Amino acid sequence: MSLRLLNKSPFLRFPRYYCTKPEPTTSTSITNFTIAKKQKLYIIDEISPGSIFFLPHGTRILNKLIKFMKFQQRNHGFEEVMTPLIYKKQLWEKSGHWLNYKDDMFQVQGTDTGKEEYGLKPMNCPGHCLIFDRFDRSYQELPIRLSDFSSLHRNESSGSLSGLTRVRRFHQDDGHIFCSQDQIKQEIQSTLELIDKVYKKFDILDYKLFLSTRPEEYMGKLEEWDLAEESLREVLESTGAPWEINEGDGAFYGPKIDIILKDSTGKEHQSATIQLDFQLPHNFQLKYKTNENGVLEQPIMIHRAVYGSLERFLAILIDHYQGKWPFWLSPRQAVIIPINESHISYAETMAKEINNEGEEENLNDYKFFLELDKRNETVGQRIKEAITQGYNYIIIIGDKEVKSGELAIRSSGSKKLQVMKSGEIRDFFIDLEKSYK
Amino acid sequence: MSLRLLNKSPFLRFPRYYCTKPEPTTSTSITNFTIAKKQKLYIIDEISPGSIFFLPHGTRILNKLIKFMKFQQRNHGFEEVMTPLIYKKQLWEKSGHWLNYKDDMFQVQGTDTGKEEYGLKPMNCPGHCLIFDRFDRSYQELPIRLSDFSSLHRNESSGSLSGLTRVRRFHQDDGHIFCSQDQIKQEIQSTLELIDKVYKKFDILDYKLFLSTRPEEYMGKLEEWDLAEESLREVLESTGAPWEINEGDGAFYGPKIDIILKDSTGKEHQSATIQLDFQLPHNFQLKYKTNENGVLEQPIMIHRAVYGSLERFLAILIDHYQGKWPFWLSPRQAVIIPINESHISYAETMAKEINNEGEEENLNDYKFFLELDKRNETVGQRIKEAITQGYNYIIIIGDKEVKSGELAIRSSGSKKLQVMKSGEIRDFFIDLEKSYK
Repeated sequence: MSLRLLNKSPFLRFPRYYCTKPEPTTSTSITNFTIAKKQKLYIIDEISPGSIFFLPHGTRILNKLIKFMKFQQRNHGFEEVMTPLIYKKQLWEKSGHWLNYKDDMFQVQGTDTGKEEYGLKPMNCPGHCLIFDRFDRSYQELPIRLSDFSSLHRNESSGSLSGLTRVRRFHQDDGHIFCSQDQIKQEIQSTLELIDKVYKKFDILDYKLFLSTRPEEYMGKLEEWDLAEESLREVLESTGAPWEINEGDGAFYGPKIDIILKDSTGKEHQSATIQLDFQLPHNFQLKYKTNENGVLEQPIMIHRAVYGSLERFLAILIDHYQGKWPFWLSPRQAVIIPINESHISYAETMAKEINNEGEEENLNDYKFFLELDKRNETVGQRIKEAITQGYNYIIIIGDKEVKSGELAIRSSGSKKLQVMKSGEIRDFFIDLEKSYK
Repeated sequence: MSLRLLNKSPFLRFPRYYCTKPEPTTSTSITNFTIAKKQKLYIIDEISPGSIFFLPHGTRILNKLIKFMKFQQRNHGFEEVMTPLIYKKQLWEKSGHWLNYKDDMFQVQGTDTGKEEYGLKPMNCPGHCLIFDRFDRSYQELPIRLSDFSSLHRNESSGSLSGLTRVRRFHQDDGHIFCSQDQIKQEIQSTLELIDKVYKKFDILDYKLFLSTRPEEYMGKLEEWDLAEESLREVLESTGAPWEINEGDGAFYGPKIDIILKDSTGKEHQSATIQLDFQLPHNFQLKYKTNENGVLEQPIMIHRAVYGSLERFLAILIDHYQGKWPFWLSPRQAVIIPINESHISYAETMAKEINNEGEEENLNDYKFFLELDKRNETVGQRIKEAITQGYNYIIIIGDKEVKSGELAIRSSGSKKLQVMKSGEIRDFFIDLEKSYK
């Protein structure tokens, strides 16, 4: 597969901040829409085209994805920041967006702002440059790794919008690394390790790496490029993963690595990206003090995202799992069905025990998405609906269970009932979460 | 204190969505600025006036506040949603904002949107009405409680902007309850319990409640108002907390309860709010099917926030704690100081043990904000800086500690050293977190 082709794919939702036009679209798959509707994950509305309304169950998945990524990024030395959404035109002029990207940005105006023009941010990098630039920086602080989950907006044409894959408002697991020339290799290596670790947790085992090298027109010094590309090659070689080279296909501001993953249905998706950037640190005149003699040097900037767009990654996961969420990601982990009205109160007690509810308010405690279906429907009907809605486990409570204190639990995928006490169910669920099952 | 006066206070950052002009400002205290600067919590910049750049340590506190509130709201039956930031003019016309609030909103335009005008949302309520309205609703689902931590923007005049207290971009622990008339009392009671529980965790024990009743001009039926006000009175009475009445001071769309808290320095702050709303459900023609005969009825909407604006609540907490964060909220929980270079590697091992680092990747595990200060400064100097920066605990490692495996730990506020093994320190820290100390 050629990355030239990929460059025109709609999946490129990472900081390609000098591209001038959005790429043509591929629409969200029908299966994807059907699952999202059945599971009530999100809605869209003409009142805000391209902006997703995440319903409670969609929000649960997104929050879990974010929690997981924050945990991983913490281990990789990232520090989260929260940066503004609107910036005056001058920032975008400095970064180069106003010249090259203006048509793809939303413009913002207030009535009493003296007619100042603002841009609604399409990416986080300029804001992070500003944070870097605010303090005197020393070589001892590098690498500085900032992460940000801000809302981003890009003004895609309304005709091209489609579900979660082609949106106007989206979120990235965005990160920028400011480092010295000789730290590039280590940072790329660490990022590739992070990507591998994350993908494995989602059972994504098949992905390819593409290195795009110096194009004919480029900025920065030739030896910088040579050194950087050589580092990237060495790192790619050391991963053992399959990789290909796309000669001359890098951005003019730096070489990059793109990752194409294959979901369980065999469909390929552009996802993570790692881009070196010699340009933005130059535009913002970023400097740090070097070791030897206090001389000021310009850091290299690395743009990287592992999920890419969270919205699009969610769409990939819907396809990948075909709506059958693993327990740890599931927005509907279990449902308790009391056989009749007389079992409701016991069912409520059991729900509390499984979720360890009570006076203790330990923020790090396990709390599961556990619902009680006490509707006046037959047990068969409620089980059927629970399966359709995608509950991972179904717990049934009748006279026998109330008497013995042992609950009948089954997974959605199997009719086999197991018998467990509430505490055992809790331990079982904790194990599933811990092992990312 | 009269609420008429309070209504003109700058602290009102809750959904007063028919107010036409921002209130005059009170600026952020000098102490507040000094602490925030010393602890590197945030920066502000002319490139985006009124939008805060939260630095890593400020983001840590905000994230903890959000995590804590999500945990509490979950216990109170809230479901989080994520809603768009920009909406076409029609939504704001329907909600009434365009007529009454337009000048305080930022307007957004894209180039290829057919010159459609968008508003950058100043509050979440219309988006939540839209979610309610999308599905057929039955009495069995009520109350529906939606929470949202979205970015909100209000176009305050640039001259009035001040630190964290007077901003253009902010976040609320926003929540909307859609309920029936006879559920109001229970919902208000539950909200007041939530507020009490939350404030106690922040050692805020002194607060007053104010009930604002029907003004001369009002919408809705007189008996609805009477019933609602009677419920609010009964609930307020039952709390045992001091409360006052402000006759005729409610909004025209419903009565409300405001909360004024006193921080540790005696300063009063407007914080939480609970507002009944008969108007928005009417504007959006929201309906639910009632029990008896399937007749459609209009729900009542309750706007409520416990922190109010997170930015402002952070400012209150900075004043309240005077920068001395309790361990569970602290962005700098501990620092390890190796006496000299030969102790660094052991210090690194101890840091890993205290944070339970390793192959296990349990998302619910305790991870502390623990730094290693291995700079080439004297121990005395490093301790001094650690105290200035606000670290809660200082752990010193020298020959004796390496040999015995017992570490010397002291709190910032006391020179007394205690001796503990890494595992004991971890347990001690976990206890502090669990008990909100």
